[in-house]
Amino acid sequence: MQEIQIFFAFRFKVDFLCDICSCNMEIEKVFPITEVLGLNIISNSALIVRSSQLIQHRCVHSRVMGASPGNTGAAPPRLPFSRVTQEDLAFFRALLPGRTITDPDLLKSSNVDWLKTVEGNSEVLLRPKTTEEVSQILRHCNERNLAVCPQGGNTGLVGGSVPVFDEIILSTSLMSQVITFDNISGILTCQAGCVLENLSNYLEERGFIMPLDLGAKGSCHIGGNVSTNAGGLRLLRYGSLRGTVLGLEVVLADGRILNCLATLRKDNTGYDLKQLFIGSEGTLGVITAVSILCPHKPKAVNVAFLGCSSFQQLLETFQRCRGMLGEILSAFEFLDASCMSLLEKHLKLTNPITESPFYIVIETAGSNATHDEEKLHKFLEEVMTSSLVTDGTVATEATKIKALWSLRERVTEALTHEGYTYKYDISLPVEKIYDLVQDMRGHLGDMAKNVVGYGHVGDGNLHLNITSPSKDPALLAAIEPYVYEWTSEWKGSISAEHGLGLKKRNYIYYSKPSEAVALMGSIKAMLDPKGILNPYKTLPDNIH
Amino acid sequence: MQEIQIFFAFRFKVDFLCDICSCNMEIEKVFPITEVLGLNIISNSALIVRSSQLIQHRCVHSRVMGASPGNTGAAPPRLPFSRVTQEDLAFFRALLPGRTITDPDLLKSSNVDWLKTVEGNSEVLLRPKTTEEVSQILRHCNERNLAVCPQGGNTGLVGGSVPVFDEIILSTSLMSQVITFDNISGILTCQAGCVLENLSNYLEERGFIMPLDLGAKGSCHIGGNVSTNAGGLRLLRYGSLRGTVLGLEVVLADGRILNCLATLRKDNTGYDLKQLFIGSEGTLGVITAVSILCPHKPKAVNVAFLGCSSFQQLLETFQRCRGMLGEILSAFEFLDASCMSLLEKHLKLTNPITESPFYIVIETAGSNATHDEEKLHKFLEEVMTSSLVTDGTVATEATKIKALWSLRERVTEALTHEGYTYKYDISLPVEKIYDLVQDMRGHLGDMAKNVVGYGHVGDGNLHLNITSPSKDPALLAAIEPYVYEWTSEWKGSISAEHGLGLKKRNYIYYSKPSEAVALMGSIKAMLDPKGILNPYKTLPDNIH
Repeated sequence: MQEIQIFFAFRFKVDFLCDICSCNMEIEKVFPITEVLGLNIISNSALIVRSSQLIQHRCVHSRVMGASPGNTGAAPPRLPFSRVTQEDLAFFRALLPGRTITDPDLLKSSNVDWLKTVEGNSEVLLRPKTTEEVSQILRHCNERNLAVCPQGGNTGLVGGSVPVFDEIILSTSLMSQVITFDNISGILTCQAGCVLENLSNYLEERGFIMPLDLGAKGSCHIGGNVSTNAGGLRLLRYGSLRGTVLGLEVVLADGRILNCLATLRKDNTGYDLKQLFIGSEGTLGVITAVSILCPHKPKAVNVAFLGCSSFQQLLETFQRCRGMLGEILSAFEFLDASCMSLLEKHLKLTNPITESPFYIVIETAGSNATHDEEKLHKFLEEVMTSSLVTDGTVATEATKIKALWSLRERVTEALTHEGYTYKYDISLPVEKIYDLVQDMRGHLGDMAKNVVGYGHVGDGNLHLNITSPSKDPALLAAIEPYVYEWTSEWKGSISAEHGLGLKKRNYIYYSKPSEAVALMGSIKAMLDPKGILNPYKTLPDNIH
Repeated sequence: MQEIQIFFAFRFKVDFLCDICSCNMEIEKVFPITEVLGLNIISNSALIVRSSQLIQHRCVHSRVMGASPGNTGAAPPRLPFSRVTQEDLAFFRALLPGRTITDPDLLKSSNVDWLKTVEGNSEVLLRPKTTEEVSQILRHCNERNLAVCPQGGNTGLVGGSVPVFDEIILSTSLMSQVITFDNISGILTCQAGCVLENLSNYLEERGFIMPLDLGAKGSCHIGGNVSTNAGGLRLLRYGSLRGTVLGLEVVLADGRILNCLATLRKDNTGYDLKQLFIGSEGTLGVITAVSILCPHKPKAVNVAFLGCSSFQQLLETFQRCRGMLGEILSAFEFLDASCMSLLEKHLKLTNPITESPFYIVIETAGSNATHDEEKLHKFLEEVMTSSLVTDGTVATEATKIKALWSLRERVTEALTHEGYTYKYDISLPVEKIYDLVQDMRGHLGDMAKNVVGYGHVGDGNLHLNITSPSKDPALLAAIEPYVYEWTSEWKGSISAEHGLGLKKRNYIYYSKPSEAVALMGSIKAMLDPKGILNPYKTLPDNIH
């Protein structure tokens, strides 16, 4: 197919007052009439120019909503990257006909994060289908010094997956093909844009499961999961992605394709380069394909939902559970009474047991239903008779299992209805995790509407959430750096699984020594010398 | 304690003919009378000068025994590192009084690998006790451009743990302290020189086990295990060290201490730097401490030793086993009839079952003895009645379990009595692993005395061993690169778990693309710009 590109454009050059910090900006913008003339005419809606666009476009200030000037989570000044020109757009349109999106309406959802707390002003969304296309995009951007924000399902919670200013959004949404699946070894190889839930369904039909599961499974991409080293609900049983991901294909900042897409459980030939890209949040390369070791689908799954009257009893229940359920234990999650209230209030979910200060979700997954049920009942008998657990219910049927799980999985969603939420994802020695919630309640007093805790007991991972009717800089100042200092004192991690993204990047020193952060900077400089990949993310401002 | 160092020395400067390649070399050597005058007089045996020392010392050619000129496993020319001077020795003796070893007799075992196939000529063995001492050693060596060979238990099989020329040997043997153990989380933190078996014993007393186990456990150090990303017998169940190692402390080439010694199951604050040092064979830094997640000691362990009449039946047995034993399966290993003959011949071990072409070792580990035995017996009944397995025996008692395991674990040892062994550690799609053994038998015909196969079926990892009465360059030329080409054709790894070391470094391209190898070179240059750490290892010669 031959393509002819015709640009009929309006050119604006106006002064305007930035609506974020009131500085004066000069903007120049060209709106093309059509995307491409040929078989891929998308839209000419870009002709409709709204004043809001004039204000947002090319503004050098990111909207980190709720950011106060002293907040280290706020966006730094825009770095001196080039701006997208008509020539750049022409290049992208020739490469990705019909998949170079500039319509502001279509761009809107890609510019804002899921929590609606960070908003960028990107004018270009690219939707490659192949690794070769990603390579050509990055080669061009690197030569032109254009910043790029790689984006998967855009379900991240730390502002890592949206542009901060006008970075080009490189979406993996059309890279959604399963490449191979070996049903002897259970090794799946697929493109980075496969939605986690689609992969789960694909595997379940073949008698396997994904080694990770998380609340965002309906939207998140496996490439994004790997880029953020997502943890989730099955880590206790199947370990982290650092062990289950066997190979990656990655496009480096300059467009070079690094093929480490091995499908072997063991390979000690040189440095394990793929590890650099797991958890580096798209700052070192764009993951284009993943191979991952998938466990057999368990023949029997049981879920128990239990109530405890104190966190100490919950911890004792956990210890007994590990001893008695052993190898069939696949999850041990908790939520507190405040979480339950929010589930009832905003999502109309019903608490299936007597009200308790703490709730536990225990999942077992095994190869023999009779053995598993026997182990679970013996355990339940013990924790009930010793009064560690006050009430409980057990599900073995899929619909009931799903209903019980939703009480844990939908807490994040319930919180979004509670006004503004300050989210913290902390790992600590397991015996300390709820102390932080209680300490924070005392520390904040009436300033916060809610201080709630839930998370992965088995991994020592607390999700601490503090809500407020609206953004509240005074509340934020009372939370931070207090929460990070507390975590640091107990040698915890200030981001157990969410990553650092934009919001947490400057807090890295609470969990990592300066030598380590400096070395991260050297690695970034080696792999992406111009810093075009996901700028303003992960690394603190003093490293850029 | 104050130390006075007095040197009364013989100085030699002679021409000599190298006994490896007959080149002429000039050597200059100083033999001190005593190591240190003070409380740490070690020996004055260095005064006894043997002609063999004169020949070996400062020779620029490493003894890769059996190396032919065309063999890419042979040592490259010595790189232009400085040579150890009296001033260097004085520095080391002041830093490590009594722990700076220069006695050639004491150095001998550290200069030769376990297989006695690679021999270096180091004149200095340093035995630090603390991370700070390691830091000072490396700072000095880096400033002086002195090459260093880090050494753990010296049980490696690819010539990675011994000096190639006169590299200073930095041994972790005195760094053998357990730092902390948390019996709630099962997280162990210890120095790098702890012997694996000692750690296993320490943990077993506390109700836990190490997540790895290997034949060399009585000698190998945990630091060496991590540096080589050791696999071993429990990988099938507990995964690789990339998942179970939670933190590392590492001293970089310039002496900087990198403290990534986290004890958290989850930490997504920036790049996971520790992964760079796992499996990089001491070329990027010296691991000084490790924190590792240890599983609970299983309440019940069973071992079955079974015979199969074909490899196809063995694979079918493996498939049934995974389905029926599921979560309690902790090992699925195999050896062929040739391995059994060697065990009987050289180690006088007895085959407990009827002679078979293939033998399987299956281990189960679980939390409920009754359930585990029921699962195992059901499985055994099925594979016996369907004639997949011809004969078998089961052990539940510790002594008998150990005896059955020794049939698998001691194959390596039996092979050392068979003359010279060419060792290959290959990973392949599991259904292909024994094809390589059979193909190799046909390919080599009468040239080889034995072609045997054993290994980890569960991980697709074959140990292919080819024996010959003595070193045989013609045999080697028939094996290599044939074995690597075969592996590469099936997208396998030419080193599944042993690493590349000296012997396999130039074969890396059979398993990794050139872009990946180039990037490894960039990482090496970034972390160790002078290349002092374990030179001639892991990276191919064209990268140095």
